[in-house]
Amino acid sequence: MTKKDRAQPETLKGFRDYLPGDMIARQRVIDTIRGVYERFGFVPVDTPVLEHEATLLGTGGEETNKQLFRMESPEGEPIAMRFDLTVPFARLLAQYPEQLPVPFRRYHIGPVFRADKPGPGRYRQFTQCDIDAAGGSSVAVDAEIVAVMCEALRALGLFDESTSTPEYRVHVNSRRVMDAALSGFGITEPAVQKHVLRVIDKLSKVGIANVRLELGKGRIDESGDPIKGVGLPPEVIEKVVAFVGITGGTRAEVIDSLSTRLSPSELLTEALTELRVLASALNALGVSEKEVVFDPSLARGLDYYTGPVYETVLPGAPEFGSIMGGGRYDGLVSRFLDRPIPSTGASIGIDRLMAALTALGKVQAPKTTVAVMILQMRGVDTAELLAIARELRNKGIPTEVFLGSRKAKINQQLSLANERGIPVAVIVGSDELANGTVAVKDLVAGRQQREGIEEREEYLAAGKAGQVTIPRAELAEYVTGLLKQQRSS
Amino acid sequence: MTKKDRAQPETLKGFRDYLPGDMIARQRVIDTIRGVYERFGFVPVDTPVLEHEATLLGTGGEETNKQLFRMESPEGEPIAMRFDLTVPFARLLAQYPEQLPVPFRRYHIGPVFRADKPGPGRYRQFTQCDIDAAGGSSVAVDAEIVAVMCEALRALGLFDESTSTPEYRVHVNSRRVMDAALSGFGITEPAVQKHVLRVIDKLSKVGIANVRLELGKGRIDESGDPIKGVGLPPEVIEKVVAFVGITGGTRAEVIDSLSTRLSPSELLTEALTELRVLASALNALGVSEKEVVFDPSLARGLDYYTGPVYETVLPGAPEFGSIMGGGRYDGLVSRFLDRPIPSTGASIGIDRLMAALTALGKVQAPKTTVAVMILQMRGVDTAELLAIARELRNKGIPTEVFLGSRKAKINQQLSLANERGIPVAVIVGSDELANGTVAVKDLVAGRQQREGIEEREEYLAAGKAGQVTIPRAELAEYVTGLLKQQRSS
Repeated sequence: MTKKDRAQPETLKGFRDYLPGDMIARQRVIDTIRGVYERFGFVPVDTPVLEHEATLLGTGGEETNKQLFRMESPEGEPIAMRFDLTVPFARLLAQYPEQLPVPFRRYHIGPVFRADKPGPGRYRQFTQCDIDAAGGSSVAVDAEIVAVMCEALRALGLFDESTSTPEYRVHVNSRRVMDAALSGFGITEPAVQKHVLRVIDKLSKVGIANVRLELGKGRIDESGDPIKGVGLPPEVIEKVVAFVGITGGTRAEVIDSLSTRLSPSELLTEALTELRVLASALNALGVSEKEVVFDPSLARGLDYYTGPVYETVLPGAPEFGSIMGGGRYDGLVSRFLDRPIPSTGASIGIDRLMAALTALGKVQAPKTTVAVMILQMRGVDTAELLAIARELRNKGIPTEVFLGSRKAKINQQLSLANERGIPVAVIVGSDELANGTVAVKDLVAGRQQREGIEEREEYLAAGKAGQVTIPRAELAEYVTGLLKQQRSS
Repeated sequence: MTKKDRAQPETLKGFRDYLPGDMIARQRVIDTIRGVYERFGFVPVDTPVLEHEATLLGTGGEETNKQLFRMESPEGEPIAMRFDLTVPFARLLAQYPEQLPVPFRRYHIGPVFRADKPGPGRYRQFTQCDIDAAGGSSVAVDAEIVAVMCEALRALGLFDESTSTPEYRVHVNSRRVMDAALSGFGITEPAVQKHVLRVIDKLSKVGIANVRLELGKGRIDESGDPIKGVGLPPEVIEKVVAFVGITGGTRAEVIDSLSTRLSPSELLTEALTELRVLASALNALGVSEKEVVFDPSLARGLDYYTGPVYETVLPGAPEFGSIMGGGRYDGLVSRFLDRPIPSTGASIGIDRLMAALTALGKVQAPKTTVAVMILQMRGVDTAELLAIARELRNKGIPTEVFLGSRKAKINQQLSLANERGIPVAVIVGSDELANGTVAVKDLVAGRQQREGIEEREEYLAAGKAGQVTIPRAELAEYVTGLLKQQRSS
């Protein structure tokens, strides 16, 4: 191929590749989450990456409409790539009422696509791990969703068992509480209510002073652009500010504060009953006050939420924002069906979670899944190496035979194994073959011993570190023991 | 939402959803394959679903060009969905030479997209499980690839251990043998060689008589359309037919036949040496003659193969065609790089494999991952059920609490559990709560006992079958034992 015809090897803007180290860590995290989802009685489903445009349009609001990757099907229909896993779930429920009678709870792990402005940690393709439960209107189901998320984060190592301290905090609120509060303050116009929610949603980002301004006459942001205000009178603004300030106590205390500080109404009574059931269910599920707090300031942007909403922050890594969120959406399925199916669910964004786990030092995956590399020496028939690999693989030991350039020296092969983090090398020269022996090199010990070595002589001596010669018949057993010892040290 | 605004819940033509039963079976198969890939020293990578159109165009030939799902990036560049996982692998090798020094072997499992004509078992989105090894020119690497595929199929239950009989057969050939043979017959023009390969490739579908016609003057197919022939003279046709008939013996016998029946040439000597190394490597890897045969008639369509090629058939389900295939492509990476990287690999198409496994009765996955459903009875606080669920989940038992309509009767709840294949139900009424007991119902035993029951009285009696009441403190232990017993019976 001439230079002219050559294609530039390049990942698309806003997309990323996963090389082995990243991918192994990612797969372990996904497998852990999957295990927790299954333990809570969620079953897996999958749906195509592409959907009819009409299925997706208008479900997530104006912004997601703009972010669709759109194209035409071979039949000329407008189609698009899914932007989340919730809309496909709503479609499934409506399309297979016979096969999927409710109550039905599923999990779904897969890539979603948004033609968003990419930035650090923001990609146009990202993987979501969703759980949703359909057909239950009790907020006990919401409590289950919140409990699953806590358990998943706990299983990922975000919980100090010795002090019972979680490194995550789930904020929970209810749209009904919001409605009751705003109506009590005289804010009854739906469009104004939505505007107020959007402003409150920004609290953690912009601070209370800016929220006050945006609830009133508006303000100028850091880039000098004007932000239109809601135009509420000062006394109403103060009520809203006091309301979103009801935080910091136990779940029961927050309910009490809401009950004493908001004006009584039928809406409020219903909303508080809902919160009490939610609190009781969380207690029954063993979800502690340190893990889940009621937070009247939590608004969440999406339009379709109708009941409890939840978001999760890692106090040790607040810069990553919410790593998991969700809520109840009792109306979404009726987009496809002549009746509503009450549903609730949550989503973990794996890419953001991985970034946060990495920042917190919680990713301890090995760089490779390979345990042994069998080196290739001059004068040794490759078939001999393959036969040794077979013995090791039959014992469940992940083994690679170096089958690169015949000219690669032993040191180059060892460097490659070291770079990749492979813990054991097996060396078979003609002498060993004649003797019925093999040399096994503990590369972890070798790496440790080489650290801090400054002299060339010492370095060369360490080159043989951790190398033993054993009868070939004992190889698999010896390597199994060595790997176990490396893991425990 | 009014009827007019409602969207039709519909999967796109050529695409499919995976409901829980299918998905569980599929995940188990993928997990099994992944385990085998890792045991053979392959490490995971992932790449985006979307690529620059220039990355994909022209790599797979005219047909795949036409089948691309194309669109524009937000920046207005032409982009497309990947149609395989091999081209992204070639891109990775060229893009990350520092992080991925060769020899490098990776596996990649993910969806690929082709705007093909859909048909039974043919979808526009399908999942491939690929392994590829780059940087090794020895056909020992090809032997490794073939051995991995055999081991994966064996791990999927396609091997009768008691009689050492595989239910799969891998056909292996080499493009070099083809070249040597055709050149020896005087067919040296590359375009004519390609045409002959395409005709030979159809042998198993159209039969030898039609191959003879297509190598000569052409023929009329079943639909009455003319198929243009290669135009070879009769004596050359007979040579080609004799060549592709060299099958049925052991690998060594096929090599011997080729060596005695083809005219000697430098090309042939090289090709036969390659086959001998391949045979020796397969033997060293313990791959039996029943599993892998040398088959000079195997051509494989794709243009980019340069050495050994392989395809796998299930003799018990030949209608599914090749469920795995691949070969050596030493030139593909130079599409992106100023030097070639010799590479070889193979791909399993999961959708076709699942269809074949199902036809052979090899899919024994449960319908659900849920082990216990806790039923909801009138007068019992949901929090009590959640607390029981928590105890079971803490012991690793996948548990769902029925949180559907409060009006659902116990029988309806039991029907749902039965339909889903959930093996155990836990029933807690107010009596049990007061006593500190729970009722456990063995739904598997119940289903077995109800089979063949005709009388209403018998049916009702069987309704209580397998139901016991035990102290609540013993629940998790009892259920664990029951599940174990169900699995073993």
